[in-house]
Amino acid sequence: MNEDSIKNHLRQQKIETPSWGYGNSGTRFKTFPAKGAASTVWEKVEDAAFIHTLTGIAPSVALHIPWDRVEDYAELKKYAEDRGIQLGAINPNVFQDREYKLGSVTNPDQSVREKATRHLLDCVEVMKETGSRDLSLWFADGTNYLGQDDLRKRKRHLREALQKVHDALPDGTRMLVEYKLFEPAFYHTDLADWGLALTHCLAVGEKAQVLVDLGHHAQGTNIEHIVSTLLDEGRLGGFHFNARRYADDDLVVGTTNPLELFAIYFEIAQAQQDENEQLRKHTSEVAFMIDQSHNIEHKLEAMLQSVLNCQEAYAKALSVDFDLLKEAQEKGEVLKANRIVMDAFYKDVRPLLRDLREEMGVPVDPFQALEESDHLKKVLRDRQSTDTGGGFPS
Amino acid sequence: MNEDSIKNHLRQQKIETPSWGYGNSGTRFKTFPAKGAASTVWEKVEDAAFIHTLTGIAPSVALHIPWDRVEDYAELKKYAEDRGIQLGAINPNVFQDREYKLGSVTNPDQSVREKATRHLLDCVEVMKETGSRDLSLWFADGTNYLGQDDLRKRKRHLREALQKVHDALPDGTRMLVEYKLFEPAFYHTDLADWGLALTHCLAVGEKAQVLVDLGHHAQGTNIEHIVSTLLDEGRLGGFHFNARRYADDDLVVGTTNPLELFAIYFEIAQAQQDENEQLRKHTSEVAFMIDQSHNIEHKLEAMLQSVLNCQEAYAKALSVDFDLLKEAQEKGEVLKANRIVMDAFYKDVRPLLRDLREEMGVPVDPFQALEESDHLKKVLRDRQSTDTGGGFPS
Amino acid sequence: MNEDSIKNHLRQQKIETPSWGYGNSGTRFKTFPAKGAASTVWEKVEDAAFIHTLTGIAPSVALHIPWDRVEDYAELKKYAEDRGIQLGAINPNVFQDREYKLGSVTNPDQSVREKATRHLLDCVEVMKETGSRDLSLWFADGTNYLGQDDLRKRKRHLREALQKVHDALPDGTRMLVEYKLFEPAFYHTDLADWGLALTHCLAVGEKAQVLVDLGHHAQGTNIEHIVSTLLDEGRLGGFHFNARRYADDDLVVGTTNPLELFAIYFEIAQAQQDENEQLRKHTSEVAFMIDQSHNIEHKLEAMLQSVLNCQEAYAKALSVDFDLLKEAQEKGEVLKANRIVMDAFYKDVRPLLRDLREEMGVPVDPFQALEESDHLKKVLRDRQSTDTGGGFPS
Amino acid sequence: MNEDSIKNHLRQQKIETPSWGYGNSGTRFKTFPAKGAASTVWEKVEDAAFIHTLTGIAPSVALHIPWDRVEDYAELKKYAEDRGIQLGAINPNVFQDREYKLGSVTNPDQSVREKATRHLLDCVEVMKETGSRDLSLWFADGTNYLGQDDLRKRKRHLREALQKVHDALPDGTRMLVEYKLFEPAFYHTDLADWGLALTHCLAVGEKAQVLVDLGHHAQGTNIEHIVSTLLDEGRLGGFHFNARRYADDDLVVGTTNPLELFAIYFEIAQAQQDENEQLRKHTSEVAFMIDQSHNIEHKLEAMLQSVLNCQEAYAKALSVDFDLLKEAQEKGEVLKANRIVMDAFYKDVRPLLRDLREEMGVPVDPFQALEESDHLKKVLRDRQSTDTGGGFPS
Repeated sequence: MNEDSIKNHLRQQKIETPSWGYGNSGTRFKTFPAKGAASTVWEKVEDAAFIHTLTGIAPSVALHIPWDRVEDYAELKKYAEDRGIQLGAINPNVFQDREYKLGSVTNPDQSVREKATRHLLDCVEVMKETGSRDLSLWFADGTNYLGQDDLRKRKRHLREALQKVHDALPDGTRMLVEYKLFEPAFYHTDLADWGLALTHCLAVGEKAQVLVDLGHHAQGTNIEHIVSTLLDEGRLGGFHFNARRYADDDLVVGTTNPLELFAIYFEIAQAQQDENEQLRKHTSEVAFMIDQSHNIEHKLEAMLQSVLNCQEAYAKALSVDFDLLKEAQEKGEVLKANRIVMDAFYKDVRPLLRDLREEMGVPVDPFQALEESDHLKKVLRDRQSTDTGGGFPS
Repeated sequence: MNEDSIKNHLRQQKIETPSWGYGNSGTRFKTFPAKGAASTVWEKVEDAAFIHTLTGIAPSVALHIPWDRVEDYAELKKYAEDRGIQLGAINPNVFQDREYKLGSVTNPDQSVREKATRHLLDCVEVMKETGSRDLSLWFADGTNYLGQDDLRKRKRHLREALQKVHDALPDGTRMLVEYKLFEPAFYHTDLADWGLALTHCLAVGEKAQVLVDLGHHAQGTNIEHIVSTLLDEGRLGGFHFNARRYADDDLVVGTTNPLELFAIYFEIAQAQQDENEQLRKHTSEVAFMIDQSHNIEHKLEAMLQSVLNCQEAYAKALSVDFDLLKEAQEKGEVLKANRIVMDAFYKDVRPLLRDLREEMGVPVDPFQALEESDHLKKVLRDRQSTDTGGGFPS
Repeated sequence: MNEDSIKNHLRQQKIETPSWGYGNSGTRFKTFPAKGAASTVWEKVEDAAFIHTLTGIAPSVALHIPWDRVEDYAELKKYAEDRGIQLGAINPNVFQDREYKLGSVTNPDQSVREKATRHLLDCVEVMKETGSRDLSLWFADGTNYLGQDDLRKRKRHLREALQKVHDALPDGTRMLVEYKLFEPAFYHTDLADWGLALTHCLAVGEKAQVLVDLGHHAQGTNIEHIVSTLLDEGRLGGFHFNARRYADDDLVVGTTNPLELFAIYFEIAQAQQDENEQLRKHTSEVAFMIDQSHNIEHKLEAMLQSVLNCQEAYAKALSVDFDLLKEAQEKGEVLKANRIVMDAFYKDVRPLLRDLREEMGVPVDPFQALEESDHLKKVLRDRQSTDTGGGFPS
Repeated sequence: MNEDSIKNHLRQQKIETPSWGYGNSGTRFKTFPAKGAASTVWEKVEDAAFIHTLTGIAPSVALHIPWDRVEDYAELKKYAEDRGIQLGAINPNVFQDREYKLGSVTNPDQSVREKATRHLLDCVEVMKETGSRDLSLWFADGTNYLGQDDLRKRKRHLREALQKVHDALPDGTRMLVEYKLFEPAFYHTDLADWGLALTHCLAVGEKAQVLVDLGHHAQGTNIEHIVSTLLDEGRLGGFHFNARRYADDDLVVGTTNPLELFAIYFEIAQAQQDENEQLRKHTSEVAFMIDQSHNIEHKLEAMLQSVLNCQEAYAKALSVDFDLLKEAQEKGEVLKANRIVMDAFYKDVRPLLRDLREEMGVPVDPFQALEESDHLKKVLRDRQSTDTGGGFPS
């Protein structure tokens, strides 16, 4: 792909940042308050809009309900649009109410299951007001002990809830079904892996798609292989980007193994150029979203870094010589094929990205721009940072 | 379940042992020759029949083609039947010919893919002669390096081969599709997990079922959850039993975490009693097979231990008080429900098993019977143990 | 070992329960309030004393400073002793103050390092008042990103602090140095494994011992091998018992893989009978402590279950026929040696434990006794359960 | 560091290649014969010398005894020197004789322990003839089942053997003690981790150093942290370089996570510039060796790629702005410090390396030089490729 073509692709790259990434977050041991962290959804939208002005490729913000609940979503929508961004995926929270201790839609208690399903359906209503295309579903549901509950019964309850939500979705919208190996459940998670998510999606209907969170896999899992499989099955809904070495560490994406992020974008870039039109269309609809927990970092700096790491990975992936690669693969030239891909990974795309940023009218050095910005000064001056405790009450 | 009922279930338990478990096997570093190990398929069938006389629950032996290829399968069938056992699943080998270095049915070279598919179809013919119900498919296919090959293309080649084999299967037979996270491929495996296996099975047809090998998962994977899911989807074809702590260690089943083996049989026992008739029927067709690599143990002792460990796990699982359990689960009594299951696990079922063995007319102390057997004396005396090298040529 | 001898050993078994195990705890997503959970140190001591009356083998309670800080430790000591238990290990908290965001004794900022060291030294003073033998040290210190800090510099700061604390310890007391692979730090933990802990202990002096928390290892780690090694080196200070499948799940000990807990007690039981007197003495000083996070369970039931699981594991371990085992090991009888150990594991020790409990004057059915107890009624009636949030502020 | 200084460091970089990397190798399933693979030690030395002519930084070859045993080591030494390289580390094989089935120096049978120790001592004699500085010790010793053998007894046997070998080492030589989590043993490995290796090294004496093989750790292990620790303790003997995702995959170094290889060289580069002279000296003695298993790749291409990947990683590591980094670390600027390191990682060092190669008089494009070389033509034409079986005898 020539440089112009690479830039054209990069201009169309989109990364959605999450409202909760701008507020305080922590581990079960402690949530350290960060200076200038956002507290209200309005502040979070401001921060997301600011990241978009710095990068030009973060044009929407994901919401979390009820954390970001407002009286009037139209007002919030206008607030965002006035600042140059859209409201993105709606993320229902069915894990923090007392009733959800033993699960939400898989709870042994029918009234809890109904409450949870109602909340999901309420969020479908929110989507209509926010103009969101995606309902992003993550369930903390699972058990901690062998025998604690009936695995098949829970599976059926989950299926039932997903079906109801699916059938309530307006045309042109989707539900993204996220899976996770463990945490907060430690014996089994009802949606433990992509296989379970896909099985449910295939059963409930066309609007159900799988969401891949980079931190939700067992050690050793080849995530780009899952990405490739879901693309081929037409069921890759989107990503939650972050980085991890151990568990669901939720670090800045691309910091643990940048080659993995590159390999994911490499699968995307390949599918974008496939001769199959349906695959190309499907690929164009994938949602790229950040989902991280910035425990010790500056929130805005962390989000900026995350967005830029995605840009850099995509730029490298687009630089692969796909024709040469195909030839080496067909000849079975193992290391040569690998070298062709690695050549793109090792390419320094930063000069190209500087050019691109200039052309797009965003700051050439986004970190410097952040540091010198009025926005940063304002949030450090005006926002209170409050101690919010942790899992262990002191 | 009362004791009689438990025994009735136990009488119907069946464990298939693999021909290759009676011969020498090793690691890439070394295959140590074992005294009395079987070399020919006739010897392996003799050993399998002997294990059945010691246990009463190992009435069939799995074959591996071409390792166990014979001119006349009818003769082999009769040889087995004369010794009281059946020929079981047919396992095609598509990983040891030179051509398979870069894959078999997913190889970039079409002629290799065709060769591999032909071998699979040949094995369908073998099934007709041996009277086998199951074709058990494991592919070593995968890549070692990012970019080495096109993941989606390989997936399609795999689908195509599976479809052809599926469509060639006689009525009443099945193909079992095994998955494996890694080894011998170390970047990606074309059939890496149960999700991939199920996706292919759903696509190719009703005769395709998933095979769960206990050693083929990532660290932390909850295998009984996969079992429960596949049962509920009607796609659990069978098991390859063994034990592991690290990789695909292929140790004697039940030796690393006996609770895991118990938990798997607990899912089976639950499904056997489900009110849904289709589920009960599906469960009754699951194939339980040993697949281990006895590198430092006596072959016959290892196989005997394996079969008995399965019996003990199943006996414990049948001892769960399912009514009490259901009640505790519905009330959300987390630790009480766990305790009800653990009570069965901690139950000493050995007296019951001694009674059962007596009733079944098999030795009450199978290890003593093995040690004192003419068969053991014979194989130690007559069979040559030969040094067979390892992955590293010396 | 005959039954009397087993019982004698069991009578001397001691399990220390932690004050924090009686209060609310959770994950970063949510701390669900539990009915009857203790809030004050006085309530926690009451609960610990109650568990001792139910079991007879939980005669001390570990404290966490500042969570359990009181004006007058002598008063707390008397309060405990009046209820039949002792104050046990002192656990300094150097992870919840704002200053500790980037580490405590390894913080790049000297003033923070000094503050943390001062707190550790203060806790040595507390030990003198509580009569505690052990100072139990866990550091959350580590980094989240490559390059965030200088690994060698942090190691030296850690050494320095450990040395100061070691040198301040009164005679007859010890410091237990705990290690942990990850969480809350996700790039590196300053004390990541037993090797690091032992290296520091060897350097700072005789009073420094390693503490093994069962949940703090990488997947696949053979913990009983670490136990055996530390025993042989004379540096096994003690245990934090819990169970895990994935990360540091902090579940009830023995619920994930009961064979692992048994294998640990098997190493202990072997060392207790070793001909080497020094090893026997060292083994007799090992501290056995529970450290769990009961997120969805009843606190008292969880603690009772934990203590009893340790008792059952130890009873089984003592039942190994050590002479027979030694013989099989020396002959290289691989599976027979394994079977001798497994025979003890599969033994149903519950009748023996019922006898033992009767002889010790504690309830024969401790769970029934808990359920019917006045203590349980009282705490459910009198104690407030309060919502305490989670890592994510809502 | 300026460019000249970087180049100076790079000129002094040394990578030792292993004789066994030039011959056929495989997995337990199959050893595929490779065209042009070396069979004799003379061929292997030729190949190693050829890799040195292509790179200029691979000036020695490691030997494996008995695989590389010759009558007259002086002749072999001269043969190597005539081709421009030295004989490097001596690697005794104590895992392929029948007697070693249950262990070598930890075998329950004394006569086997003695045989193994004798072989180690014989290899010390070989060192004297080859002029090798390092004896590189890897033991396959371990057990497959709980109870199979006595862990503490094995530890003592191991210590005893290490002590004897240590005391036999000539002045100026070292023994490198390698550890490995698992394989070929699957319950425990006698030298399972760096902690065990270091414990033994500290006990036996100054000439004992730890060897870090990148593939021998549990999932998630931070290897550069181990490197940093061993450097600080003065006990980092050297590396066995390779890459892995799952187990001990033995792939081309740097292909799975290039950031990890970079991070290791980053620790080395930092230590090289430390103010502590002893640390600098210790770092200068570290041995960098390849240890891979090229199962499907061309042997020479794989080795060339491996050496060049090390060069590239080191060049990047040397490019870190260490002063800027130190400042950011001291200020606790988490992401800025990370960015400074990542800036060096993302730097395209290939132009610099091309210059360097030109200056060093080695081919600017080593892969092209390999492809067009007479050596490649010769080995493809003259060397037989033979089928050598696998762990499973067919």
